[in-house]
Amino acid sequence: MNVTVWNEYRHEQQHEEVRKIYPAGIHQVLASELGVQGFDVKTATLDEPEHGLTEDVLNNTDVLLWWGHLAHEEVDDAIVERVQKRVWDGMGLIVLHSAHFSKIFKKLMGTGCDLKWREAKEKERLWVVDPSHPIAEGIDEYIELEEEEMYGEHFDIPAPDELVFLSWFQGGEVFRSGATFKRGNGKIFYFRPGHETHPTYYNKQIQKVIGNAVKWATPTTRNSPVYGNAKPLEKLEGYKIK
Amino acid sequence: MNVTVWNEYRHEQQHEEVRKIYPAGIHQVLASELGVQGFDVKTATLDEPEHGLTEDVLNNTDVLLWWGHLAHEEVDDAIVERVQKRVWDGMGLIVLHSAHFSKIFKKLMGTGCDLKWREAKEKERLWVVDPSHPIAEGIDEYIELEEEEMYGEHFDIPAPDELVFLSWFQGGEVFRSGATFKRGNGKIFYFRPGHETHPTYYNKQIQKVIGNAVKWATPTTRNSPVYGNAKPLEKLEGYKIK
Amino acid sequence: MNVTVWNEYRHEQQHEEVRKIYPAGIHQVLASELGVQGFDVKTATLDEPEHGLTEDVLNNTDVLLWWGHLAHEEVDDAIVERVQKRVWDGMGLIVLHSAHFSKIFKKLMGTGCDLKWREAKEKERLWVVDPSHPIAEGIDEYIELEEEEMYGEHFDIPAPDELVFLSWFQGGEVFRSGATFKRGNGKIFYFRPGHETHPTYYNKQIQKVIGNAVKWATPTTRNSPVYGNAKPLEKLEGYKIK
Amino acid sequence: MNVTVWNEYRHEQQHEEVRKIYPAGIHQVLASELGVQGFDVKTATLDEPEHGLTEDVLNNTDVLLWWGHLAHEEVDDAIVERVQKRVWDGMGLIVLHSAHFSKIFKKLMGTGCDLKWREAKEKERLWVVDPSHPIAEGIDEYIELEEEEMYGEHFDIPAPDELVFLSWFQGGEVFRSGATFKRGNGKIFYFRPGHETHPTYYNKQIQKVIGNAVKWATPTTRNSPVYGNAKPLEKLEGYKIK
Repeated sequence: MNVTVWNEYRHEQQHEEVRKIYPAGIHQVLASELGVQGFDVKTATLDEPEHGLTEDVLNNTDVLLWWGHLAHEEVDDAIVERVQKRVWDGMGLIVLHSAHFSKIFKKLMGTGCDLKWREAKEKERLWVVDPSHPIAEGIDEYIELEEEEMYGEHFDIPAPDELVFLSWFQGGEVFRSGATFKRGNGKIFYFRPGHETHPTYYNKQIQKVIGNAVKWATPTTRNSPVYGNAKPLEKLEGYKIK
Repeated sequence: MNVTVWNEYRHEQQHEEVRKIYPAGIHQVLASELGVQGFDVKTATLDEPEHGLTEDVLNNTDVLLWWGHLAHEEVDDAIVERVQKRVWDGMGLIVLHSAHFSKIFKKLMGTGCDLKWREAKEKERLWVVDPSHPIAEGIDEYIELEEEEMYGEHFDIPAPDELVFLSWFQGGEVFRSGATFKRGNGKIFYFRPGHETHPTYYNKQIQKVIGNAVKWATPTTRNSPVYGNAKPLEKLEGYKIK
Repeated sequence: MNVTVWNEYRHEQQHEEVRKIYPAGIHQVLASELGVQGFDVKTATLDEPEHGLTEDVLNNTDVLLWWGHLAHEEVDDAIVERVQKRVWDGMGLIVLHSAHFSKIFKKLMGTGCDLKWREAKEKERLWVVDPSHPIAEGIDEYIELEEEEMYGEHFDIPAPDELVFLSWFQGGEVFRSGATFKRGNGKIFYFRPGHETHPTYYNKQIQKVIGNAVKWATPTTRNSPVYGNAKPLEKLEGYKIK
Repeated sequence: MNVTVWNEYRHEQQHEEVRKIYPAGIHQVLASELGVQGFDVKTATLDEPEHGLTEDVLNNTDVLLWWGHLAHEEVDDAIVERVQKRVWDGMGLIVLHSAHFSKIFKKLMGTGCDLKWREAKEKERLWVVDPSHPIAEGIDEYIELEEEEMYGEHFDIPAPDELVFLSWFQGGEVFRSGATFKRGNGKIFYFRPGHETHPTYYNKQIQKVIGNAVKWATPTTRNSPVYGNAKPLEKLEGYKIK
């Protein structure tokens, strides 16, 4: 199981407040924890050549995590297409927090992916609504985060294949905060929490969910579907009624 | 469009507090409003013979509304089966509030249909999460109810076919409060609000949702599927490859 | 109800075999039938300025039908984005047959939309699997087409919100041939049949399905969701526990 | 992983034709294969006391397989309720072939579960339509069975949570032949093939699917949701806006 954690890695370099929480970057905290959970983890960031996402890196990635916020537009379209093709080919994708607005997520969803937001250090509760889902393995009825940015409905996504978490926010909003999708041979999990000014990715329950999601999103091993011109009828022996 | 509003009609006769709000019963308020909206509406209650749901009544009902709370167990199993068969046959069913625990809803869902609850006169906000759904026609981003009973997740239902409303409650809970299901040829809408001690069914937005749901749940006109032993192969002429 | 039928309109001009079936173009046959059904119908084709899909035309279209095959790549990206935005804004979209490979459908799905195909004048049966769906209104158990092009699974789309028709083909393939999706405020229906060398769009049952789909895809009238920065907490009076 | 294979075990004792294929019963073939795959497997049959499904057996079963046909009505209602409760509690359930009409499946679905059928030794092809689903792990584009009983749509089930396989039959029918559902904390997989007069359960691909399904249906380990009266508001400290 090869996992690559991709991070924009700008907030941590530009904002003292964020650097205090994630001195080496959000990606390092996620990578370290996933390593502890037993995955083989690498990281990649925006300012590396090809954003750290060469053909070789992607071909050797089973599940990719994506965190971005300030610089979605700086992600090269060719790299976005490369990631999309790799998802279609089977790579799992975990889309975190503000990456709802990343090019790759919007391209895979076919919608605007917009939402409501408010930075007010509100309490958030993520309720489990799909109790037997492997992504909720080991999680209590809800995860409570003392302070987070609010994301509120309407969240402009297609109806998820599965809805695992629903968030409650102190100020009156709700949010579909843990949702699965499939595109081609790849599995996608969007997970809401993780604003850069809160220590959310140190939370043990949040880490557990992310590890569960990585396991869930692992590619299956089977031959890809065959597309295009099918065998002509005359060669379909045996299709005559006996 | 023939609509029948079924009500247990016990609270209104037993509790002064409820009678003040619904002097003639919840069913009369719903029936009156749906009449204004142009439907042909009848009512039926638990204490009528056959609970008011004779074969004849059901066969002439396009959409049935169901409100119950105190006396789910008093509803005769044979009548419940009759209603289930009629839903399978195409009749729409709108399941209101505490009817989540009605025999008919549990039988159609195949789950326990349990939930959390609290009577604390809390504020509820029902957010629209399926913006193009006909049941949300004409409804703002959310419906706000100043005081309602709280229902909280986990709500033990199958994953709904469509999720139209999500509720936020002041005390920290969320709820899938507007959900669609299909069973056989019949369409089902569960709609959460409507505790007997609050004047919820006088709310114009709530009335609008219920009217929308009745329209949505109207049976389609087509022949029922044919089940059982199919035509033998030898009669399937034309299935030979040319 | 304003309907616009868009057609690439190349086969009919280039291929005698197709012109015999659709002398004035596929769009004219569809437009004429939808007119008979009571819709207000216009047409638009690839070679018109802006492909006939000006801002004004789209803003006055409730439901757009799309047929294309030879020239998907000639559709201007700016027009595709315009159509996508209009779907997000609420316009219904009916995607017909080989338009599975149109830019607009792929953009809205986020997948490759590939499939298997064979031109062998095979028998097709479209079975209804969602018996109460309004798109199946008035349709028998199945629609049988004596001769059609085969499309076979795997069809590379997201799991549909609803699956209305499943196709059987003589040569051994199946296909999810009637499927609904929602994107933003817009409803989308993909409907498989309609190869240009067969008179499929004259079939009464096929016409009935397309008319049903147009009705189903009609925009609802409600305010669009509000996105972006939400009201600050201090202004949310009334959210204090009493 | 404790698996229990339940079989009605009547055909094999009553019909020479079936006994030739499954001399020790369908359950023994399934149990033997699942044992080879590494599961800890027990069997249970209709004519054992409590149908072999005591409280103790069920409490120690992670996933239950169910095959029945002739004697659905002989299964005791109390045992059916026991199985249902155990599914709600988390036990996985694999429903095989003619068990579509078992009491337990109908009770969990809330529908009639009827279908079309024909015994004509037809060719069946099960096409994978959810390519990344773990139940399709290692399976080719389709599984071909030279001779099977036909099951045809309409199959009267709720819309499945996930549709993994679609069947094509020689005589003109299609069928949703691999479908997942969740009820309470339990996962359910319906898998169509396996008529008693054909050696289907010896097919390596069919065995692979059943093993995959058992793994997929394994209960997760988390605390069950809490239902009922929730904590009163006054105890919800911290829910005041700061």
